[in-house]
Amino acid sequence: MNIRMTFNLLGRTVLCEAALMAVSLVVGLIYGDSVLGFAAAIGIALLFGTVCLLIKPASTAIYAREGFVVCALSWIVLSLIGAVPFVIEGMIPNYIDAFFETVSGFTTTGASILEDFENAGRHGLFFWRSLTHYIGGMGVLVFMLAIMPTASESSMQLMRAEVPGPKVGKLVPKIKKTAIILYVIYVAITLLEIILLLFGGMNLFEAVTHAFSTAGTGGFSNRADSIAGYSPYIQYVISVFMLIFAVNFSLYYLILIRQWKAAVKNEELRWYIIIVALAILFISIDSRDMFASTEETVRASLFQVSSFISSTGFLTVDPVYFSPFSQMVIFALMFIGACAGSTGGSVKVSRIAILIKSFINEIKRMLRPREVLKVRMDGKPLVNEVVHSVAMFFGMYMFIVMISMLIISLDGFDIATTASAVASCMGNMGPGLWQGSCYAQFSPLSKIVLSLDMLLGRLEILPIIMLFVPSVWKFGKKSSKVVD
Amino acid sequence: MNIRMTFNLLGRTVLCEAALMAVSLVVGLIYGDSVLGFAAAIGIALLFGTVCLLIKPASTAIYAREGFVVCALSWIVLSLIGAVPFVIEGMIPNYIDAFFETVSGFTTTGASILEDFENAGRHGLFFWRSLTHYIGGMGVLVFMLAIMPTASESSMQLMRAEVPGPKVGKLVPKIKKTAIILYVIYVAITLLEIILLLFGGMNLFEAVTHAFSTAGTGGFSNRADSIAGYSPYIQYVISVFMLIFAVNFSLYYLILIRQWKAAVKNEELRWYIIIVALAILFISIDSRDMFASTEETVRASLFQVSSFISSTGFLTVDPVYFSPFSQMVIFALMFIGACAGSTGGSVKVSRIAILIKSFINEIKRMLRPREVLKVRMDGKPLVNEVVHSVAMFFGMYMFIVMISMLIISLDGFDIATTASAVASCMGNMGPGLWQGSCYAQFSPLSKIVLSLDMLLGRLEILPIIMLFVPSVWKFGKKSSKVVD
Repeated sequence: MNIRMTFNLLGRTVLCEAALMAVSLVVGLIYGDSVLGFAAAIGIALLFGTVCLLIKPASTAIYAREGFVVCALSWIVLSLIGAVPFVIEGMIPNYIDAFFETVSGFTTTGASILEDFENAGRHGLFFWRSLTHYIGGMGVLVFMLAIMPTASESSMQLMRAEVPGPKVGKLVPKIKKTAIILYVIYVAITLLEIILLLFGGMNLFEAVTHAFSTAGTGGFSNRADSIAGYSPYIQYVISVFMLIFAVNFSLYYLILIRQWKAAVKNEELRWYIIIVALAILFISIDSRDMFASTEETVRASLFQVSSFISSTGFLTVDPVYFSPFSQMVIFALMFIGACAGSTGGSVKVSRIAILIKSFINEIKRMLRPREVLKVRMDGKPLVNEVVHSVAMFFGMYMFIVMISMLIISLDGFDIATTASAVASCMGNMGPGLWQGSCYAQFSPLSKIVLSLDMLLGRLEILPIIMLFVPSVWKFGKKSSKVVD
Repeated sequence: MNIRMTFNLLGRTVLCEAALMAVSLVVGLIYGDSVLGFAAAIGIALLFGTVCLLIKPASTAIYAREGFVVCALSWIVLSLIGAVPFVIEGMIPNYIDAFFETVSGFTTTGASILEDFENAGRHGLFFWRSLTHYIGGMGVLVFMLAIMPTASESSMQLMRAEVPGPKVGKLVPKIKKTAIILYVIYVAITLLEIILLLFGGMNLFEAVTHAFSTAGTGGFSNRADSIAGYSPYIQYVISVFMLIFAVNFSLYYLILIRQWKAAVKNEELRWYIIIVALAILFISIDSRDMFASTEETVRASLFQVSSFISSTGFLTVDPVYFSPFSQMVIFALMFIGACAGSTGGSVKVSRIAILIKSFINEIKRMLRPREVLKVRMDGKPLVNEVVHSVAMFFGMYMFIVMISMLIISLDGFDIATTASAVASCMGNMGPGLWQGSCYAQFSPLSKIVLSLDMLLGRLEILPIIMLFVPSVWKFGKKSSKVVD
């Protein structure tokens, strides 16, 4: 592996983090917070980043291996450094807790160990907490792509490891240009949400942090009761934006260039809309007696479904107050997740669709063994490798969920708590099916396992596993180039 | 489809059931029970069977389609008729409950709705209840094979749909001979168990019924506390036999013809032994404070693990009394299940092994994309179709579990109850993770869904799904012949 180049890229990423922590420091200064934590963390980041950049790579060529490793290491190192301010400022005194919280931020999970939501003196920290979602949302490495002068060939490897979902619709040939377009869309929709939230009477600080959390489909709020205390208007706005950020971003590009037809015809979008509609319908009917009015029922159901399918994890009602059936719908949504190519997490709607279609093919094949049947998406047949890798992904996903559940169950919580904590972290949702959804109750071991699950879920499993393969770390050994 | 031949075969199966119910009737007479229920059920079976046999098929050729349909219909019709004695004799007054209990018997699940375990006047019924396990264990249709004069080509189709697991090791070329050999092994091991149980002081009736339930890896007992009330010796005997009946039967044939080496080298067997050993170790350590002595701890752990991995479901300790970690181990075992080609259920050890190996290949492929990697079992590379169908099976399995959980959750039980009921029925285990593991608490809808899950699990999904495909039922339409 080209270890020098790997650390060179890692260094650049960490320097970007320093810059973004500087922004949070400024926010802290504006609100008169103590900013010692940020200063220290920025110092560590600058030191680490500079040392990495001093390692001059013999070759700038990077391939699949390096792409995966840079990707996985970046998320871990950014979290390790990003956790420092929380510890130093005493907001989260325990480092493992702070690491969990920051991994949760960068992976846009939104699972929190926070029990004390006192905002005074912590505006910078709460801003940073939401900003990690915003950074994580589009991917630390897509971010790095936009500022990094690399060749398109090697960048494609990074893109492959980074962008969530089974396939990347190449919007335009050049990766860098793609990244910029995605960013413009991302920022534009975020700005729109901020404006609409301000219009609803939210103050600027909360509008920005909540918009960040929505955009990254993260779910951190600076309030203990999440979105429950806000007006119905704000709940509707956030519901809609959660749904928007869970759609494949290439569809927005298609709309931008007025290819409405292609956007609307997108098959994953149709599955997504059907799943959302059915889930809202089921939960609304099931919880009709829980709320005072029909409007309230529909609003709560819409919010719950939007929050879970988008993997955001904001709450207006604690999921445990819903009936077991509604909880089971939520549990199912934890495994479905958002559309591919969005900021959302979990298995992804397109993978679920491909799986269901493969099942149907499997039945057809039994009836007519001689026919060659291909799974089709958007009218085009998929190559067998795609179907295979989707099935493998699903298998590995369930397997990791099961192993994690075994370890977490050592803490002695009931099965619903354990299962939902794992499914929620793996799917980058946040809340689980127990009262309060606070992760402080888990043991340090469980918090590390859950952090790993968040990383595995966010980076679609393989990049993280690769870090544990010894042969990856053999210095100088020629990497195989990926054939695209 | 050749509907005439399908019903012809179904008729023969039902006539066999009549004969087996006659045996139960005799047992009832010996103990002085009322046998009206059996008489009526035998009458129905004779009538149904005779009518079916009166339908003369134009051709005796049957292919994949017919094989699946005969298979699926047999399990359902046998259960529909086999439930009658329980209803008429008032042991299970509600027909849906009786159907659930009989499906549970024939699918060797052992999930029971029985609350009243009074044996007096019901010896024939308890005998029949265990006998359904014994019949189900080797498969109604393998049974039918042995007495049915059919050509080997078409029989292979039945075998394919019937024998559990991803592959059938063809012991000897002729199917009929294979069936007979399997039967001899089955009966011989059962007799050995009966003798060992009698030796431990069990009375003949209980020794026979419990041996039937063990052989079929079913789990019905005529006692409310299952095996808990029996001596440690008997618990050990049953533990060992549960493990024995969950091993691929072709290995016993290999031992029979003194091919010890080939039997011991079997890869699935090794995985099975490792999983069993680890599970016993984990549960023993975890529950060391629950029991008075180490012997008791190990015995309880051994029994629990043997019972769940073999999908039998006998109990000495209610699983809910174990810690959440041990419960999670049990929950995991519910998805692993027994070896292929045994009487056990669930996903099967070989499928799990193939999946894990495919995951490892998937990681290797990322590192060395140009290499062609094959999953190997027993040293031989598997064709891609096998790996694909294993992945598809696992996906469908999990998908059915999720859908069933959604429906069962309408009953309002907690997630652990719902999830374990579905996993247990789908894997043909029996007990769930709630106190008493009695299924009487579920609604009629849930009982029907769980019955369907038992059938789907037992017949490895596709045959049951096929019943719901309208095109299968098109009369006279030429079936495709399966290429083997």
